[in-house]
Amino acid sequence: MTGSGLPFPILQALVGDEEVGAFFSNEAELAAMLRVEVALAEAEAELGLIGEDAADRIASACKGFVPDWNALAKGLAQDGVAVPEFVRQLRRAVGEPHDKAVHLGATSQDIVDTALILRLKDLAAVFSRRIETLIDALQRLGERDGSIALMAHTRMQRALPFTAADKIKTWIQPLERHAETLRELLPRLLVIQLGGPVGTRAELRDHGDAVADSMAERLGLGFAPAWHAQRDRIGEFGAWLSLLSGTLGKFGQDLALMAQNEVGEVALPGGGGSSAMAHKSNPVQAEVLVALARFNVGLVGILHQGLVHENERSGTAWTLEWLVLPQMAVAAGAGLAKAHALAEGMRFVASAPPERKA
Amino acid sequence: MTGSGLPFPILQALVGDEEVGAFFSNEAELAAMLRVEVALAEAEAELGLIGEDAADRIASACKGFVPDWNALAKGLAQDGVAVPEFVRQLRRAVGEPHDKAVHLGATSQDIVDTALILRLKDLAAVFSRRIETLIDALQRLGERDGSIALMAHTRMQRALPFTAADKIKTWIQPLERHAETLRELLPRLLVIQLGGPVGTRAELRDHGDAVADSMAERLGLGFAPAWHAQRDRIGEFGAWLSLLSGTLGKFGQDLALMAQNEVGEVALPGGGGSSAMAHKSNPVQAEVLVALARFNVGLVGILHQGLVHENERSGTAWTLEWLVLPQMAVAAGAGLAKAHALAEGMRFVASAPPERKA
Amino acid sequence: MTGSGLPFPILQALVGDEEVGAFFSNEAELAAMLRVEVALAEAEAELGLIGEDAADRIASACKGFVPDWNALAKGLAQDGVAVPEFVRQLRRAVGEPHDKAVHLGATSQDIVDTALILRLKDLAAVFSRRIETLIDALQRLGERDGSIALMAHTRMQRALPFTAADKIKTWIQPLERHAETLRELLPRLLVIQLGGPVGTRAELRDHGDAVADSMAERLGLGFAPAWHAQRDRIGEFGAWLSLLSGTLGKFGQDLALMAQNEVGEVALPGGGGSSAMAHKSNPVQAEVLVALARFNVGLVGILHQGLVHENERSGTAWTLEWLVLPQMAVAAGAGLAKAHALAEGMRFVASAPPERKA
Amino acid sequence: MTGSGLPFPILQALVGDEEVGAFFSNEAELAAMLRVEVALAEAEAELGLIGEDAADRIASACKGFVPDWNALAKGLAQDGVAVPEFVRQLRRAVGEPHDKAVHLGATSQDIVDTALILRLKDLAAVFSRRIETLIDALQRLGERDGSIALMAHTRMQRALPFTAADKIKTWIQPLERHAETLRELLPRLLVIQLGGPVGTRAELRDHGDAVADSMAERLGLGFAPAWHAQRDRIGEFGAWLSLLSGTLGKFGQDLALMAQNEVGEVALPGGGGSSAMAHKSNPVQAEVLVALARFNVGLVGILHQGLVHENERSGTAWTLEWLVLPQMAVAAGAGLAKAHALAEGMRFVASAPPERKA
Repeated sequence: MTGSGLPFPILQALVGDEEVGAFFSNEAELAAMLRVEVALAEAEAELGLIGEDAADRIASACKGFVPDWNALAKGLAQDGVAVPEFVRQLRRAVGEPHDKAVHLGATSQDIVDTALILRLKDLAAVFSRRIETLIDALQRLGERDGSIALMAHTRMQRALPFTAADKIKTWIQPLERHAETLRELLPRLLVIQLGGPVGTRAELRDHGDAVADSMAERLGLGFAPAWHAQRDRIGEFGAWLSLLSGTLGKFGQDLALMAQNEVGEVALPGGGGSSAMAHKSNPVQAEVLVALARFNVGLVGILHQGLVHENERSGTAWTLEWLVLPQMAVAAGAGLAKAHALAEGMRFVASAPPERKA
Repeated sequence: MTGSGLPFPILQALVGDEEVGAFFSNEAELAAMLRVEVALAEAEAELGLIGEDAADRIASACKGFVPDWNALAKGLAQDGVAVPEFVRQLRRAVGEPHDKAVHLGATSQDIVDTALILRLKDLAAVFSRRIETLIDALQRLGERDGSIALMAHTRMQRALPFTAADKIKTWIQPLERHAETLRELLPRLLVIQLGGPVGTRAELRDHGDAVADSMAERLGLGFAPAWHAQRDRIGEFGAWLSLLSGTLGKFGQDLALMAQNEVGEVALPGGGGSSAMAHKSNPVQAEVLVALARFNVGLVGILHQGLVHENERSGTAWTLEWLVLPQMAVAAGAGLAKAHALAEGMRFVASAPPERKA
Repeated sequence: MTGSGLPFPILQALVGDEEVGAFFSNEAELAAMLRVEVALAEAEAELGLIGEDAADRIASACKGFVPDWNALAKGLAQDGVAVPEFVRQLRRAVGEPHDKAVHLGATSQDIVDTALILRLKDLAAVFSRRIETLIDALQRLGERDGSIALMAHTRMQRALPFTAADKIKTWIQPLERHAETLRELLPRLLVIQLGGPVGTRAELRDHGDAVADSMAERLGLGFAPAWHAQRDRIGEFGAWLSLLSGTLGKFGQDLALMAQNEVGEVALPGGGGSSAMAHKSNPVQAEVLVALARFNVGLVGILHQGLVHENERSGTAWTLEWLVLPQMAVAAGAGLAKAHALAEGMRFVASAPPERKA
Repeated sequence: MTGSGLPFPILQALVGDEEVGAFFSNEAELAAMLRVEVALAEAEAELGLIGEDAADRIASACKGFVPDWNALAKGLAQDGVAVPEFVRQLRRAVGEPHDKAVHLGATSQDIVDTALILRLKDLAAVFSRRIETLIDALQRLGERDGSIALMAHTRMQRALPFTAADKIKTWIQPLERHAETLRELLPRLLVIQLGGPVGTRAELRDHGDAVADSMAERLGLGFAPAWHAQRDRIGEFGAWLSLLSGTLGKFGQDLALMAQNEVGEVALPGGGGSSAMAHKSNPVQAEVLVALARFNVGLVGILHQGLVHENERSGTAWTLEWLVLPQMAVAAGAGLAKAHALAEGMRFVASAPPERKA
């Protein structure tokens, strides 16, 4: 959608996250889809559903696979999912006689969903690490500035004195819970999706569960019955992203309020400039944290609409997920990066004693 | 807001839930607030912050407390929270000399939030039981009708034959996960809120944590540092309600689709009548499940806005919670009740073989 | 849902609006439904579809109609709409031989939707008047305080000096646009809904449009073809409510920021008290304005989901409207009332010269 | 965020709209910003605030302006808005002595908002034309297929017979209203934004309104006082996009329901294939219409959060708009394109008489 020489809208420089965004690139999705097809073929070979030579041929074809992106895009536009065209291209790459062994007993959603889960696994590790890093930065901030006297504010009014350490705790504690809930939800999220056309694994005859189990192990995922029409796993992860962004938004809102000239309880790094007022130092990163929070929080209310998934596969609900989940992940990631930069660069300023101000 | 002789808008008969709604009545809230004040006084007496006689007097005054509801409503309108006026009334009921021992070291939010958590504890038990009951009903349905041949539908089109048992599984499995996630989140949710004016427990001197601990034990809640400005606990529960409603909405959507005259794979209990077409039997309860799902799912996107909670207390974010959380709970409860009635009363009808239909 | 002697949750004292809420009471809805049935009968008599005596009998039965509320609630729960049971009761009240003339050629949705529109007409007049009153109050405020020197704040930082008059203009101008857009949308909104069972008016034979036209005139509404499955009229009004609440939320947010002790550019009426900090004066009404804004703004994102209305009538989409629209109206109304009280009672305080503050 | 050789995620092939998306490219935004700076300079020259030669120099520098995109992205990330860096680059391109005449008396938001409005003007023309084209296609469809007998469906059940013409009307009428409301809102939307740092135009001394007026005329926009902190104009347009998408979603939902094999009242063009079931023809475009509707409808609930705009400029609220508005426009545009393709390619199939089906 751009042609600026930049591969993305420049707004991404403000609200994007390159590391997280990369998980949702065309290339990353294709690579994950190829891994799934390989694991499927190997599992099927293990169980004797296809020959070892077929599995080998598929694996090597996947390794060197060069997609026809335009045809994939066209196929996606036509079929509502890129897999039919992807399988066509992959079969061509595999060639006779093993082309028929490709994608055996699987359906589009098996590939797309499992390929998503594979990337969410790595993404979750990124989030987990970033949360830890942010907590560390806040703790170091507390060690350095914790004794600085601040004024607590309730309902937008000065309340009573407390310290920077008190304030920092309210930022750290929810992050610890988000780390904990992420650990709890991952076993539900990081599972194989394999169902075949209608979720029964019937196309794999008696070997459905065994294939799924073998695939799961090969891909480092947990086993689960087909869940393609049960989107609560995705919805739970989306809710987690929303909660995380909300917590980061509270951090940003606090900073923007404390950084007001009249309050002056915090000095922020990298204040933004104005095109008209040279004297200003705007709390840009803090404001963006709030914007990302309000954005992600609203998006979870759209993502969960996808739980109302008609019958054995809903093109509507599934497409809605695709529209929403990646940007939620990016917004949460950008929030973590910004929060970390703020925690690293900010410093507290002792609040003036209550007397000075009316 | 009504005067019909009915204590509620009659729409509640369609979309409400009496048992769940009762947790959010004025009376239930007041009763919980009284429990909190008693537990606070008893904990403070235990730690010597107030006398045993004061705690006894407070407990007995709470027992017989008759509120001036109009004054409470007026106080709420004025102060944004009913507690200041409630404490005034309660102190009057306690009388001298123990009136000053009431609410010692606590703030409004301690009372309101802990009183909410107390009710959410019982509410969670209701939800837990209802989910179990619904799973049971679906399992019995499967035992009876599971072998009936149906047609799986993907992307709104006939796909391949499968059975009622296959279908039922896709309804049960997410419910099992919702039961599991509820168990996981409860230890985070069911904790005491005690912080004093700005969350430091400083007003209780060195006894803050001990008072909180004792209160928590008396109230059957877990211990936690003050979390009044960290709304992720509430947000996590709200997300759970949204996910649950989403799952129930999928059940409703499936039933409404299967109950179409042209499909006829299910017969629903209690079909609704039409004022103009006597021959119709509408899948009213299934439709309402979908409406409740879309409603609750959207509401979580509002509830989470409250995580952006300014500083040590946000009147804005807190009020927003009050507007949203109760109706989310009621909608989820109503969904469970309706889903159960449907599961109990529905029956599957074998799908015509594919040949018959074009 | 309550039993406190108060006919509503006391939270309504903070966030509710009695005048607006009354439009959505059981009684108000029933009264409007009766008006619609009378107008239908009279129009049908005019066109010779029923006798004049039947129309007279229906009109007099409607006048004295005493509903069985419990049966209506039960009917609503069963049929998903109260009209079938309502028509049963009304036919009974009319008695033989004219009972068959009741509701002739109409369907439930004709009654419910037109009865809604009738109330929205009066409600729109309330909103229109309140907006005017609020603009007046802000203009008077400007006349009194307009020359007071304030500091403009951009991106949460002190920017440059300006005046209270400059500030007030930014609150008034959108209100003027909301008044204008309301005038523009009313001709689209305030129209008769009459379609019969599937929207074709076929049950009224060749007289469908004539009956609709006559009904519309009797009810003071515009004529329109049946629009029961086209919910953009309702959605447009909901969006208007959202925008209005958003504008009021900006007013509240500005006030809460200006009322900060450290800023002190405004003194608000009726500051709320704290149960723990006697010295505080909280900007409760301003905070509530923001909460109502975030609430209503989120709700429009749910209301519009109802535009995806399946075929000739969607129980799902219609029920969703019922869950959302009334509370949107009440929230907007409460916002207008609060904004007016603030505009009437507030005063500006000259901003300290920039030098004094760091 | 991609590297596939394709300049966008391939998902855009399914849910994107190239023509509409182009309005939000980096290049389009820059081009509009340059037009605004030229108009500003020319207006200022007209009023004697800068010399004619300065305005000429600025115009010619803008004509050949080659941005340093990376620096712009970096500036945006730093300042929260690209304008400060853009003005730096532009001043450099203008060179001494006229560099100081660039951007005189304006602020970042004047440039960004007016540059947005300029593009929305052309975008509105695209939407207006597409709506007309869609209505035409539906009317032609009605002329060809209107007499085909269908079965009306209410509450997901067969109701009574009607015709394709009846159905088509319910799709066309809201589109006509959307065309009408667009015409009504454009005079509010298509206005100049010029305020200077805090919205008073004070930097232009007595010529503020004259400059704004002249700029507006040069740019083909209406005149308006500064409205930078009043986001209802944007919000109203967003609500319009949501309503439009909702209407298109209803069209899609109807088609998906009518295209069910068991119903078979419509044959859709370009049915999507399945990777596992060769016999299937999925109503992909209809499903996508519903997904785009649920998406956009939820997004308006986020966009309107930006109306709660703090004081004289909110980095938070403004950034939120940037995150939401472009994708709303693209989703609405994609919906129009898909709806048109469906209307052009679909045909109705007479409904079987009611007797055949149970």
